Amino acid sequence: MAKVTGLDGIVAAETDISLVDGEKGHLVYRGYWAKELAISKEYEEVAYLLWFGSLPNQEQLEAFTLKLQNNRVLPDSIRNILDALPASMPVMNVLQTTFAAMSDDAPSWPPTVEQAVALTALLPTLIAYWHRRQSGLPCMEPYTGLGHTANFLYMLSGAQPNPAHVKALNAYLILGMEHGMNASTFASRVVLSTQSDMASAVSAAIGAMKGPLHGGAPSGVIAMLDAIGTKDNAEAWIRQVLERGEKLMGFGHRVYKTRDPRAEALRQVTEALSGNDPWFDLAVHTEKTAIGLLEEYKPGRRLYTNVEFFAASIMRAIALPTSLFTPAFTAARVVGWTAHILEQAEINRIFRPQSVYTGPMPEQL
Amino acid sequence: MAKVTGLDGIVAAETDISLVDGEKGHLVYRGYWAKELAISKEYEEVAYLLWFGSLPNQEQLEAFTLKLQNNRVLPDSIRNILDALPASMPVMNVLQTTFAAMSDDAPSWPPTVEQAVALTALLPTLIAYWHRRQSGLPCMEPYTGLGHTANFLYMLSGAQPNPAHVKALNAYLILGMEHGMNASTFASRVVLSTQSDMASAVSAAIGAMKGPLHGGAPSGVIAMLDAIGTKDNAEAWIRQVLERGEKLMGFGHRVYKTRDPRAEALRQVTEALSGNDPWFDLAVHTEKTAIGLLEEYKPGRRLYTNVEFFAASIMRAIALPTSLFTPAFTAARVVGWTAHILEQAEINRIFRPQSVYTGPMPEQL
Repeated sequence: MAKVTGLDGIVAAETDISLVDGEKGHLVYRGYWAKELAISKEYEEVAYLLWFGSLPNQEQLEAFTLKLQNNRVLPDSIRNILDALPASMPVMNVLQTTFAAMSDDAPSWPPTVEQAVALTALLPTLIAYWHRRQSGLPCMEPYTGLGHTANFLYMLSGAQPNPAHVKALNAYLILGMEHGMNASTFASRVVLSTQSDMASAVSAAIGAMKGPLHGGAPSGVIAMLDAIGTKDNAEAWIRQVLERGEKLMGFGHRVYKTRDPRAEALRQVTEALSGNDPWFDLAVHTEKTAIGLLEEYKPGRRLYTNVEFFAASIMRAIALPTSLFTPAFTAARVVGWTAHILEQAEINRIFRPQSVYTGPMPEQL
Repeated sequence: MAKVTGLDGIVAAETDISLVDGEKGHLVYRGYWAKELAISKEYEEVAYLLWFGSLPNQEQLEAFTLKLQNNRVLPDSIRNILDALPASMPVMNVLQTTFAAMSDDAPSWPPTVEQAVALTALLPTLIAYWHRRQSGLPCMEPYTGLGHTANFLYMLSGAQPNPAHVKALNAYLILGMEHGMNASTFASRVVLSTQSDMASAVSAAIGAMKGPLHGGAPSGVIAMLDAIGTKDNAEAWIRQVLERGEKLMGFGHRVYKTRDPRAEALRQVTEALSGNDPWFDLAVHTEKTAIGLLEEYKPGRRLYTNVEFFAASIMRAIALPTSLFTPAFTAARVVGWTAHILEQAEINRIFRPQSVYTGPMPEQL
């Protein structure tokens, strides 16, 4: 039977955008620790960094923020398409469809930062529009005074968001923006490499992100936090799991062999926000308890908290329904995709790997 | 500056579906010469071969043909989406959008042959619907008695097609069905590898096919045939081009260093249909004249006719507008994409190549 390689260990591209070093626990965005950016910067600043290669000064940031704001509003042409889609359609399909529709054959090469801004700005609007349509709620217009993250929460809930929630989601979104040559980013570069357009390449990336092997939700951790329920209950609950020899959700990662810098950043942010939301308190307490008990039950085997652990408590705190986890991840990763698309275009070469034929041969003619 | 590799020479997958050997001029579909299949088989038979791995017997072919016919009809849900898209949208964008909309999160894994049948059967309907909408013509319902290729022509033109045109287009579509790990096929496998669904993966492939480096139209050859106009004019026209030291369109290929088997198949089919259409006559005469003159002007340098040369005369004969060349190619290649998607799913492994970071490093914390 034919085999696929997954291209493990094969270098598909050089990139100035990010370094993912799972052995050392490093995640670098254009010369900055992603962890530090997530703790100290806004969504807009890190998007600017990933697209332009340096952090903006105050003037640049203001102009850039304005550009993002101006592109939040849903164009009528897109609203018409959304309203023609069946209401049962999952958000990811809606995003993939809408981005495909936004592609335009005419002046599509090379892709531009302006296109990246427009697609990134519109994505939360699309998610919120669809979510509220499916929930039977009226669509919210974007709130001009709010930043990207706060406005996303506002459009979803229809109310001014809790600042602690904005801060936590902001950190989550920054940490989700970029992670090297993952399947969706790679798909976007392959599609673009034919000199296709940015929206088509992002649409393909969304198609890849949809797959459960990629954009899977932290539903295991959510279920765990739900089951624990209160801080008092944490130790007894975790002991039961470990006594039964079962796996504890939210610990360990395929790439990071040491502490996942994204988990560490979210831990710090969540800890700093303790007292602002019971879910943050529960997450911080549960992690401390679990780390202690893991050391007791599996001594010497260092099991680190993964990014899903703290992401789950943030999703719970902002009351995001499970159906919006992968879309929220998409609202982060779209920055990385578009940065890679811009980079690919700079010195493009069409992706055309080999295949080895393992089927039968015809008789010679 | 960061570099991309294009993955030249890297094996991305083993495959039982096709062998492309440009040195030897071989193109094999599942143990059969593609050239022979194009000359002697129907679209339906070769689609069956690529999906199931063997040619159908009479009973299998009849059942399979019926399945394709039953899936030609445009569902109302898709028509609603089409009618919400701006009429100016290019067909490829429409196809990419519609396929994204057809993806469904629910029972999407693994992809099935039934899905491949449904998507492949509907594609000509979508192309024809959009083309006639853009041309201000009423939409044609599929014509049940006609085969896949004949019905495609019927839905485009609204009239019973010329059998010689059907035969030529049938050969063109068969030869376009499959060609190894090209960028669009590769994109479809990358997207599917996250356990995404078939329609999403095909949508991504369409996004790649749109790029001019991939699905480019044989417009150079068309312009040449148009300029030559009549057989009498061929020799003088070609002599002028060669005297001026210019490149003759339709000769030479990046992959095939010897005779392109697809060109050879189309040449045989076109020659056999001589007398049925002036464009076929012109193409056959022009090729013979050009080969003779190339030998005279560039002795010893073997320049073979490429597939675009005869494709151009077929596109002209069936009066396909330039805007439908890449969509027609898509109506062929969708069979290969879906065959690869089915193969990828059999023993899936997520595509996750490496990237090498070439940007700056932060100071250690």
